[in-house]
Amino acid sequence: MTSLAATAARIEASFAKQALMTTLGATLESVEPGRVVIVLPVVPALFQQHGFVHAGAVATIADSAAGYAALTRMPEGRGVLTAEFKINLLAPAAGARLVAIGTVVKAGRTLTLSQAEVFAEAIAGDAGSRKLCALLTATLMAIEDRAGIVD
Amino acid sequence: MTSLAATAARIEASFAKQALMTTLGATLESVEPGRVVIVLPVVPALFQQHGFVHAGAVATIADSAAGYAALTRMPEGRGVLTAEFKINLLAPAAGARLVAIGTVVKAGRTLTLSQAEVFAEAIAGDAGSRKLCALLTATLMAIEDRAGIVD
Amino acid sequence: MTSLAATAARIEASFAKQALMTTLGATLESVEPGRVVIVLPVVPALFQQHGFVHAGAVATIADSAAGYAALTRMPEGRGVLTAEFKINLLAPAAGARLVAIGTVVKAGRTLTLSQAEVFAEAIAGDAGSRKLCALLTATLMAIEDRAGIVD
Amino acid sequence: MTSLAATAARIEASFAKQALMTTLGATLESVEPGRVVIVLPVVPALFQQHGFVHAGAVATIADSAAGYAALTRMPEGRGVLTAEFKINLLAPAAGARLVAIGTVVKAGRTLTLSQAEVFAEAIAGDAGSRKLCALLTATLMAIEDRAGIVD
Repeated sequence: MTSLAATAARIEASFAKQALMTTLGATLESVEPGRVVIVLPVVPALFQQHGFVHAGAVATIADSAAGYAALTRMPEGRGVLTAEFKINLLAPAAGARLVAIGTVVKAGRTLTLSQAEVFAEAIAGDAGSRKLCALLTATLMAIEDRAGIVD
Repeated sequence: MTSLAATAARIEASFAKQALMTTLGATLESVEPGRVVIVLPVVPALFQQHGFVHAGAVATIADSAAGYAALTRMPEGRGVLTAEFKINLLAPAAGARLVAIGTVVKAGRTLTLSQAEVFAEAIAGDAGSRKLCALLTATLMAIEDRAGIVD
Repeated sequence: MTSLAATAARIEASFAKQALMTTLGATLESVEPGRVVIVLPVVPALFQQHGFVHAGAVATIADSAAGYAALTRMPEGRGVLTAEFKINLLAPAAGARLVAIGTVVKAGRTLTLSQAEVFAEAIAGDAGSRKLCALLTATLMAIEDRAGIVD
Repeated sequence: MTSLAATAARIEASFAKQALMTTLGATLESVEPGRVVIVLPVVPALFQQHGFVHAGAVATIADSAAGYAALTRMPEGRGVLTAEFKINLLAPAAGARLVAIGTVVKAGRTLTLSQAEVFAEAIAGDAGSRKLCALLTATLMAIEDRAGIVD
């Protein structure tokens, strides 16, 4: 059996290797079986032309949250790759902080379906100020026995 | 009539405001009516955990290329917002440079469908070394008469 | 104010005009604000080559459930059209009956995002025998002042 | 080596088992390596509430065309299942006949990406009267060694 601590450590170590997260300023907030939360402070370096966070940055944290949620359901030694995702953008990604909550819809041997909700917080850390700004669904693939593709 | 130069100038000015492009290192390579190309040198700051460019960075340049291709078909004064996109990731985004080619599938009054192909170039600038690594389809919305949403 | 009964009557009348529902054998099970349920008995006329219900038939009831859920949130006189949908197929659509539950994620003036879960019931009408077999997200467009596009 | 005739025979035999195609009135028009065409005469039994072909019927022929295009690239003995698809609906599906042209974007060992364009023909069989009404992208999964999942 894989302990919760071992799973969290595994995701933390993998997240730390995702250099793009550092580049954007995203951090891993929580890891539970089947659920991963990533937060991203809103800063001008992430903006598109109208002063909102670019859909690509929103998609980036949503994809990672969905992918790591899937990874919590995969046996150790497997790597996770995104096969596809779709994101609907519902409101401008603005405010103080974005929060991406990834959850597993159905875990399979080869393919896992996850989704991620992204909320824009007017006040960072104030869940009461959250507004849903994007919804992503992603197909994640479990990779086995391929050099370099672990976690 | 809108001249080609005016359209290119409009897209260039809008692109220059997309701070995320600067953050990632992406540049605008070409603008034609219905077709926009964005390039992104592959650097470690963009990586996910296995040493490939993160799907989110791939999606970012694909979304911008698709969106600006749509904008070339919209009257002046309209702003473009992404309503949704889906991206299929076909091969690891690795090599020297990514090239996202956005084209318009169908331009409508309110909604435009664009797609973007993303190629990984083993040798930067060598089209012969290109390999298709992602395909995106996006629904773009033309925004009119909303403060701050122009281009 | 639109009464619940008026909304249900509006959806029922529109559903009755969807000849494809009759062709497939689907019926409208319930209508609430923001939530519509459609059921489809599993019969061989709906099969693909392996003896499961074809993904297209699954998508059909999911799209209608999502679309009508959106319509419950639109003012009278508007028509609803699907701009796009994505469906992930999670398990073979088999058993006695499929149940598509459409709900509204976010209702907007022009665009509404709905989703639909499709469950396969081993025993028709036995919720305890339900298994999630598909998840759809759809962008619905509200159409105003276009001849013939009402409801 | 698999001959073209053998591939066509394989797809024809599988298509004949897709009872939903018969229910809707769709026929297989052509099979080539990586490309499959399905046609659907427009009849009232396929309509949604405004008198257009229901998005679900459009998606059904597009999904089958995309899936069979993928199957032409898979070794004999494999079965094909749709993991997910997204469809953008660009114009009302009206006229005399719909034509779905499925092509392979990238064939992989486990996953294949196909796309399908659906055209509405004002005059059945007159390619000059075609108008693009939908674009689908689909992820197909090759199934091996599972009872009943062949072709």
